[in-house]
Amino acid sequence: MPRLPSGGCLRGLLALVRCARLSGGPRRASGGPGCVPDPPAEASLLRGELDRFGGVSVRLARLDRVDTVTFQRALQAAVQQWRSEGRVAAWLHIPILQSRFIAPAAALGFCFHHAESDSSTLALWLGDGPSRLPGYATHQVGVAGAVFDENTRKILVVQDRHKLKNMWKFPGGLSEPGEDIGDTAVREVFEETGVRTEFRSILSLRQQHGVPGAFGKSDMYVVCRLKPRSFSIDFCQRECLRCEWLDLTDLASTENATPVTSRVARLLLYGFRAGFDKIDLTTEELRAAYTGKLCKLYHRELPDSYKR
Amino acid sequence: MPRLPSGGCLRGLLALVRCARLSGGPRRASGGPGCVPDPPAEASLLRGELDRFGGVSVRLARLDRVDTVTFQRALQAAVQQWRSEGRVAAWLHIPILQSRFIAPAAALGFCFHHAESDSSTLALWLGDGPSRLPGYATHQVGVAGAVFDENTRKILVVQDRHKLKNMWKFPGGLSEPGEDIGDTAVREVFEETGVRTEFRSILSLRQQHGVPGAFGKSDMYVVCRLKPRSFSIDFCQRECLRCEWLDLTDLASTENATPVTSRVARLLLYGFRAGFDKIDLTTEELRAAYTGKLCKLYHRELPDSYKR
Repeated sequence: MPRLPSGGCLRGLLALVRCARLSGGPRRASGGPGCVPDPPAEASLLRGELDRFGGVSVRLARLDRVDTVTFQRALQAAVQQWRSEGRVAAWLHIPILQSRFIAPAAALGFCFHHAESDSSTLALWLGDGPSRLPGYATHQVGVAGAVFDENTRKILVVQDRHKLKNMWKFPGGLSEPGEDIGDTAVREVFEETGVRTEFRSILSLRQQHGVPGAFGKSDMYVVCRLKPRSFSIDFCQRECLRCEWLDLTDLASTENATPVTSRVARLLLYGFRAGFDKIDLTTEELRAAYTGKLCKLYHRELPDSYKR
Repeated sequence: MPRLPSGGCLRGLLALVRCARLSGGPRRASGGPGCVPDPPAEASLLRGELDRFGGVSVRLARLDRVDTVTFQRALQAAVQQWRSEGRVAAWLHIPILQSRFIAPAAALGFCFHHAESDSSTLALWLGDGPSRLPGYATHQVGVAGAVFDENTRKILVVQDRHKLKNMWKFPGGLSEPGEDIGDTAVREVFEETGVRTEFRSILSLRQQHGVPGAFGKSDMYVVCRLKPRSFSIDFCQRECLRCEWLDLTDLASTENATPVTSRVARLLLYGFRAGFDKIDLTTEELRAAYTGKLCKLYHRELPDSYKR
């Protein structure tokens, strides 16, 4: 780790650090001449914001005129300052084109927390004991649609183009950030098969770890019951090898279906005979306690006398 | 974007690019003297591996002697080469201490795909049409435990220390990567309350978007039914303000509980009176079709005659 410079230069660096003291509006640094340069961009270099968890968050604006050595020294002094102020964590939000500051921060102990598209976020735990930094997203969520036509007793299935074994499965795909589960099912079924549908219920939830193509993340896979609104198939040739309306009893008994597909086909067969209320999870919108936002809750049917 | 150099230097760069042609084992570049330097580290700079989706993946080993200008020119030539070979995507895996190469890659169109701890991954879509690059994890998964003692008809609830409103809720927390839902519930309940429990079933699934503290990601929240194995409370003072065994009927009727807690309390009350099979999702282990790994599937109870 680089050592702090001595003498006059230290004054300039401490001026930079003062900007990071979270004490309100922008300040101009006051380093002496010939020491740390003091253009407006640099003066705001390490200005941070305090979050409600006791951490400090610094957004690195455009720092075209700041070199990495100056940055690293300023960051080291800032970290010392934040520790002395009792901050528990430091966060750096770095635009991708300013990524030359990542390695100097890493040399001071910062690690990637996450990165996406055109920026990365680095974090350093400053509190006592082991890090209690919150994690980032850990799961991908896949959603499949079991589209069952009660009139013909047929169900919509596909075979993937790129698999070694050609097994029947339900059309589906990954939920996009911010997308409701039922909406993912309807969208993916249409994109893959050309069939329009309507969400009915959630039938099943599967969890799996170490899924190929998930970059080491875990996978949640939800199967929804959908009702068809159109019937003619126009399937995506890039993704699918075959797409058919198959007799539900055939799908429930064939060896040529994935285990989850086979199980859900049997669940549907039971639901068709005994009533879908036997297999469905109901959907309800509730208001979240703290954010006041609507959220969707899925569970077994609850008699009206128990609701409020 | 930087232009390709002309004359002799071009020869040296093309030598670097040849290493990225994915055509087998390591090759030595053969740039002329005084042009692009050719130490072993640099010769392997852009050697890539072809993935099964038609993309090329380059792991940037230690490139201590490669400057960013040389890297950017080599990368630009490599991208041209990959395009001409019909590759659909290029991936760069960059150790955090080599992050000086991120901005030059970004100037050529690469974006962050993800980053974690001590490395980042950048990607560039090379195929036709809009990007079909796979996404990264989009969700965090929270798990809560509804620990109900059938003998006393009491249920274990907590109040968060850091909330503005002190409302009763079930103890719980985020699922760790690779952790089963039931295991998260048991672990979090113990860490938060000191009570030991046993997983019984999944009761409810909630989805929510734009949750605070989720870094803009979506949130899945699973409530499990747990059976207590110990009863004395030793709660985490850092996280919780209060922790109590509350009468289930009181929790189902109080205004002082979050909406989801209140709803699940009513579901439990119904299950206690009518049978837990009315509210539970059963858990079963199945073998995944392609990976052969075990996965856990949750759905409504299916009569044995329907299983195989």
